[in-house]
Amino acid sequence: MRTLEHPEPETLRLETVLAALADPVRLRIVRQLAGGHEDQACIAFELPVTKSTSTHHFRVLRESGVITQHYRGTAILSNLRAQVLNERFPGLLDAVLRADAQA
Amino acid sequence: MRTLEHPEPETLRLETVLAALADPVRLRIVRQLAGGHEDQACIAFELPVTKSTSTHHFRVLRESGVITQHYRGTAILSNLRAQVLNERFPGLLDAVLRADAQA
Repeated sequence: MRTLEHPEPETLRLETVLAALADPVRLRIVRQLAGGHEDQACIAFELPVTKSTSTHHFRVLRESGVITQHYRGTAILSNLRAQVLNERFPGLLDAVLRADAQA
Repeated sequence: MRTLEHPEPETLRLETVLAALADPVRLRIVRQLAGGHEDQACIAFELPVTKSTSTHHFRVLRESGVITQHYRGTAILSNLRAQVLNERFPGLLDAVLRADAQA
């Protein structure tokens, strides 16, 4: 089965994670993953963008280390790497989610 | 005397602030402003970039709301808007500074 590549926790870079989060659509994905149950399919997000743009946003989040993606059948399921982010950048994810909820 | 424009605190946007911080040179400026005394001139930063690139980075930080810049004679002095950032996005600046120190 195809698998997607994910960066090791120790290779995550702050500026790459910040850049990944610096987009309203990607913040929306992260917020939904943080608030919902695990293993959400991309199709469940109902984003106001085309499929290819959506795929791009999920890939940016995965390649920066913010989310995991894995195949289940033909669907790609996503998870927030909250524990990894909290260990590498303590408080960052919470601050972003709190700020985003206010804005 | 010339003055530079600064966004009002309530107009700061999370994704714009994250994008401003998502750059190693700008993180270095923010870290130096956070650690040093106030009112630092651009020339004091010794950045590994050209003057015009440096000017660009300071402008991105100012326009996003992360720093203030004001003229004193021919120098431009910069300050971190820590209080504004802490009020608008609680915990974000601390998390970024803490993460950056580790990386």
